[in-house]
Amino acid sequence: MGREMRSTFIAALATSLLVTAASAQQPLALRDMGSFHVGGRKVEVSGQPVKEIQRVPGGPMSKLDLNGTYHVEQMYVQYFLVQNRKGRWPLLMWHGAGLTGATFETTPDGREGWRDMMIRRGWDVYLSDATERGRSSFAPPLIWKDDPIFLPEADPWERWRIGTGPGSFDPDPAKRKVLPGNQFPVEAYDAFMKQLVPRWLSTDDVVIASYVALIDKVCLCVILAHSQGGHFAFRAAEQRPDKVKAMVSVEPATAGAGNPSAVKEMPLLLVYGDYIDLDARWVAYRKAALAYADGMRAAGGKVDVVSLPERGITGNSHMIMMDKNSRAVLDVIAKWLVDNGLADN
Amino acid sequence: MGREMRSTFIAALATSLLVTAASAQQPLALRDMGSFHVGGRKVEVSGQPVKEIQRVPGGPMSKLDLNGTYHVEQMYVQYFLVQNRKGRWPLLMWHGAGLTGATFETTPDGREGWRDMMIRRGWDVYLSDATERGRSSFAPPLIWKDDPIFLPEADPWERWRIGTGPGSFDPDPAKRKVLPGNQFPVEAYDAFMKQLVPRWLSTDDVVIASYVALIDKVCLCVILAHSQGGHFAFRAAEQRPDKVKAMVSVEPATAGAGNPSAVKEMPLLLVYGDYIDLDARWVAYRKAALAYADGMRAAGGKVDVVSLPERGITGNSHMIMMDKNSRAVLDVIAKWLVDNGLADN
Repeated sequence: MGREMRSTFIAALATSLLVTAASAQQPLALRDMGSFHVGGRKVEVSGQPVKEIQRVPGGPMSKLDLNGTYHVEQMYVQYFLVQNRKGRWPLLMWHGAGLTGATFETTPDGREGWRDMMIRRGWDVYLSDATERGRSSFAPPLIWKDDPIFLPEADPWERWRIGTGPGSFDPDPAKRKVLPGNQFPVEAYDAFMKQLVPRWLSTDDVVIASYVALIDKVCLCVILAHSQGGHFAFRAAEQRPDKVKAMVSVEPATAGAGNPSAVKEMPLLLVYGDYIDLDARWVAYRKAALAYADGMRAAGGKVDVVSLPERGITGNSHMIMMDKNSRAVLDVIAKWLVDNGLADN
Repeated sequence: MGREMRSTFIAALATSLLVTAASAQQPLALRDMGSFHVGGRKVEVSGQPVKEIQRVPGGPMSKLDLNGTYHVEQMYVQYFLVQNRKGRWPLLMWHGAGLTGATFETTPDGREGWRDMMIRRGWDVYLSDATERGRSSFAPPLIWKDDPIFLPEADPWERWRIGTGPGSFDPDPAKRKVLPGNQFPVEAYDAFMKQLVPRWLSTDDVVIASYVALIDKVCLCVILAHSQGGHFAFRAAEQRPDKVKAMVSVEPATAGAGNPSAVKEMPLLLVYGDYIDLDARWVAYRKAALAYADGMRAAGGKVDVVSLPERGITGNSHMIMMDKNSRAVLDVIAKWLVDNGLADN
């Protein structure tokens, strides 16, 4: 066998072994998948220069007229519709700040994400990138005038309950301080950093408008939201209380727009990870959400609050869906959905 | 039946009808799907202010220290691995300028995209967002110093062979001038506009570095590239000629880095739509690619050039994978892959 043939053979063998490993699971059977954008608006821009640019190296020059109408503030949604459906309604998964729908796909260390776990459990899943992020795009600086925020690598480590707080990050992985028993896959922290995208502090209202447009297009539905996505989910549900049949809010930051009685018909599950009491920020976020939950209950609503450590599920960072015990947490959520009549067992 | 029950019943009925329509096709059976990021680098930033910001309305204040290390220039890749594989190698789909992987998903008017057509034909598909776009994120202005380019709605209409050229776009859809017989779904032009993302003119080298990193991770492979993605694909393949087993380049803009003999072992299919001769820009792009093809042939390479109108497939804009006859074009590509021994029939 020549060198080239031999390397081809080895590559084919490696591929075949990978296929065997992947095939150990049942195949995912989808009746359809695809994507669309919802929401957004058109904005007219005038008084700008007309430029001549070379769009690719060596290519012809062409005119770029910055004046005209821009389509902005739309939201990208990818859907996966399962063949054997058990979830009674579609499940909408809304990620947190500085992230995209990739949050719920493969974990940074390569394990199956919550998206596919829910599809395997028979749920139609709609995974979106909040307006301004990922495939939703962002608006020109003429239209959104504030600067986007980018997070350096120390920031999530110190704030999202992976490390022990301020000063716990170090460029040298061996010197980073980790909360004891933490389940975040710290060896894949670099891979997690690659998922970060910028965010703006001025865009909450347009993000919520897009989420309401998504609800109008897709729901009746169940929403599973994380962190800032939880805040958006409460605010969107308050505007469409008849369309959101239940909500799972994983460490929301923060709660709604102050009208919990509007969503009293919507069963709510609040899920919290570990170490909350060690960080005043997380105590404040939880306090706001629990006050919101009390408001729902006072109006006759049904709220369940799960503190994972009290269920014996310990070590969860804020990025619960990426933690090494992410499947155990999803089992708790999935059982709650079944118990509340939202899915066949 | 009360009003609420009746509307629930009607919604359930509508959902059931939609399900029936979707089920008319065979289900997609995947042995796995997921995502990852490749490439990128870390950049240290210092001398920046430390801010106190409120990350969500009503939430606690927290420190944002802009100094530190940023992860930039990575590339997002989503993969779909088919259960019954017929493609001999993975298929990498690379989109054009100002776009993301959404190019190959559902068409703007809601038809199946090339991604799923290829999966149904038995290909493992890797769909990426070029570095700087979509879920790949972009770097802070401190690191990429030029401004991104946003396209107003007239620009693609007039440049991508949908309309009749400069001046053919009008805010009023009824007044827009369309190339005669054009297959682009013009009624869904707004939906197409929502797919656009900004681009930078300074980032070609970092985009190509990420594509090379993707090749190193995934290939041996076949690449299907469009427009600017075609330019990137030639340049990346020249760096990894032993790993790219074939290339389909749909209206590349432009050709490679000037070393066609490097990829002489790689069968190449060039595909062109309609109206090219009406626009000097497209004539220039095609001329560059045909010169590259001549260089490959002179070195002993195999290149096929398909002008779709000569095959009786007429009316194609630059966005061929979105045109109403997109399936007919994909049939041509898929047959070429089979004819070249890259897939079982």
